[in-house]
Amino acid sequence: MLIKQLGLIGCGLLGGSFALALKQANCVSRVVGYSRSASSAEKAKALGVIDEAVDSALLAATGSDVVLLAVPVAATASVLASILDAIGPDTLVMDVGSTKGSVVASAQMALGNKIAAFVPAHPIAGREVSGVEHAQATLFDGCNVIITPIKETGAKQFEKAQALWLLIGAAIHHMSPEHHDAIFAASSHTPHLLAFAYINSLANQRLLDQFLAFAGSGFRDTTRVAASDPTMWRDIFLSNKDDVRKQIHLLQQQLNTMDEVIANDDGPKLEQLLTQAQRIRAAWNIS
Amino acid sequence: MLIKQLGLIGCGLLGGSFALALKQANCVSRVVGYSRSASSAEKAKALGVIDEAVDSALLAATGSDVVLLAVPVAATASVLASILDAIGPDTLVMDVGSTKGSVVASAQMALGNKIAAFVPAHPIAGREVSGVEHAQATLFDGCNVIITPIKETGAKQFEKAQALWLLIGAAIHHMSPEHHDAIFAASSHTPHLLAFAYINSLANQRLLDQFLAFAGSGFRDTTRVAASDPTMWRDIFLSNKDDVRKQIHLLQQQLNTMDEVIANDDGPKLEQLLTQAQRIRAAWNIS
Repeated sequence: MLIKQLGLIGCGLLGGSFALALKQANCVSRVVGYSRSASSAEKAKALGVIDEAVDSALLAATGSDVVLLAVPVAATASVLASILDAIGPDTLVMDVGSTKGSVVASAQMALGNKIAAFVPAHPIAGREVSGVEHAQATLFDGCNVIITPIKETGAKQFEKAQALWLLIGAAIHHMSPEHHDAIFAASSHTPHLLAFAYINSLANQRLLDQFLAFAGSGFRDTTRVAASDPTMWRDIFLSNKDDVRKQIHLLQQQLNTMDEVIANDDGPKLEQLLTQAQRIRAAWNIS
Repeated sequence: MLIKQLGLIGCGLLGGSFALALKQANCVSRVVGYSRSASSAEKAKALGVIDEAVDSALLAATGSDVVLLAVPVAATASVLASILDAIGPDTLVMDVGSTKGSVVASAQMALGNKIAAFVPAHPIAGREVSGVEHAQATLFDGCNVIITPIKETGAKQFEKAQALWLLIGAAIHHMSPEHHDAIFAASSHTPHLLAFAYINSLANQRLLDQFLAFAGSGFRDTTRVAASDPTMWRDIFLSNKDDVRKQIHLLQQQLNTMDEVIANDDGPKLEQLLTQAQRIRAAWNIS
């Protein structure tokens, strides 16, 4: 058995799916879970995602050889500080947060000389639904996982983290936390922000009900991610502030250009802009 | 047989699907098609979408009791002017354009005292692919069609247009052209514009290839419509200029607000904004 005990801190979609995947791969003996909301932990236990629900993050980490943090990124520092005493020289502590720079900084501050235990990871496997009831053993099968080790990351922990993700079907990529955050600000955080902002731009208009009544498949797809968890995304936007703001500003420039081109009835320029975007998007396929 | 001859002007996704649907419902004897690109008309004939390919819009309209215009909206005026001589007192001429104000103005100008023939229609059935090879007999089955009659619209033509859409499975809604354009600027045109602008905001960045390599399902869905036909959307944005620009400006205000709230690390306000959007989107279902 690869893992004797998995300590799961945060029993939601990602944490629950990780536990289920390891159980299905038959490589964990026991999963102990803690959730800030007691009802989530109880639900996780009822669903067989965890074997025991405990009352604190520290209790979940105690006796666990692998600890998975699956909480909103802003909670990283306080959770890691609370489990410090349970981290031994061989313990692997891993997160699944969508930003990595602030998570690594939190880990360095909270873990001090135990920082070797921590492996920062980001599985590209979000969904617009949340909660352990949507957890699936196959969520990470075929998905990309970005691991962003730092120089203090322990070799044993790094190897073990990779072995776990490979076992449950993920493909692994390495990059620095800073590079990760620059990429995901552009490819993930900004489209989410855009979807939230667009829905809010409709929200206060008198015709909102009719907008929604006649919205079609374009609206459905462009706004799907606006149904995502607000707390999780609040933390992501704030913890990747500089990169996200840079992308918002680049997007605003493009909107200003489109607005100006439309105001000037400049058909050729508008077609050129749309064609550029169309070619890039039509050539893209999810990897 | 409800229609002796359908004259199809524009053999693309929408026009082709309309012809196929009427053929499948066994209510058209013959379809004569014209396309600006001769190869599209030939392809439509080879696929059985039309029975005869002709060399002009006028030839497609001649002898047709129903004429369907399925061309980019900016072509409406010139096409209608070119078929004027083929329009008799009982002819129904209908379009499928995504904007209605400019289409109606074009029709009034081009058709003069034959304006009774024209019924402005907008089936909410776009896809990001285009071309007659993607035409489907079932495209309009269960879809919403907005009909925006004006006071000059002939009663016979109005009834016939409705009968055709009902026959091929669409649900019919009526509104004024102005109301239509205000609604679709918000629910359809702006999300399309947004997707194009967002892709262009990535386009000139050094890391574009990596943005695309690590883009996930959020990116996939928010940008799907950016793969849509640039010519068609150029025309839509320009022909619904005022309503589209109003929506762009409202969206820009929201982006500015989000940017400011993130810059100020204002977590509570950010969460409030995201929660408002999340509630609206999570409660929405495609009708």
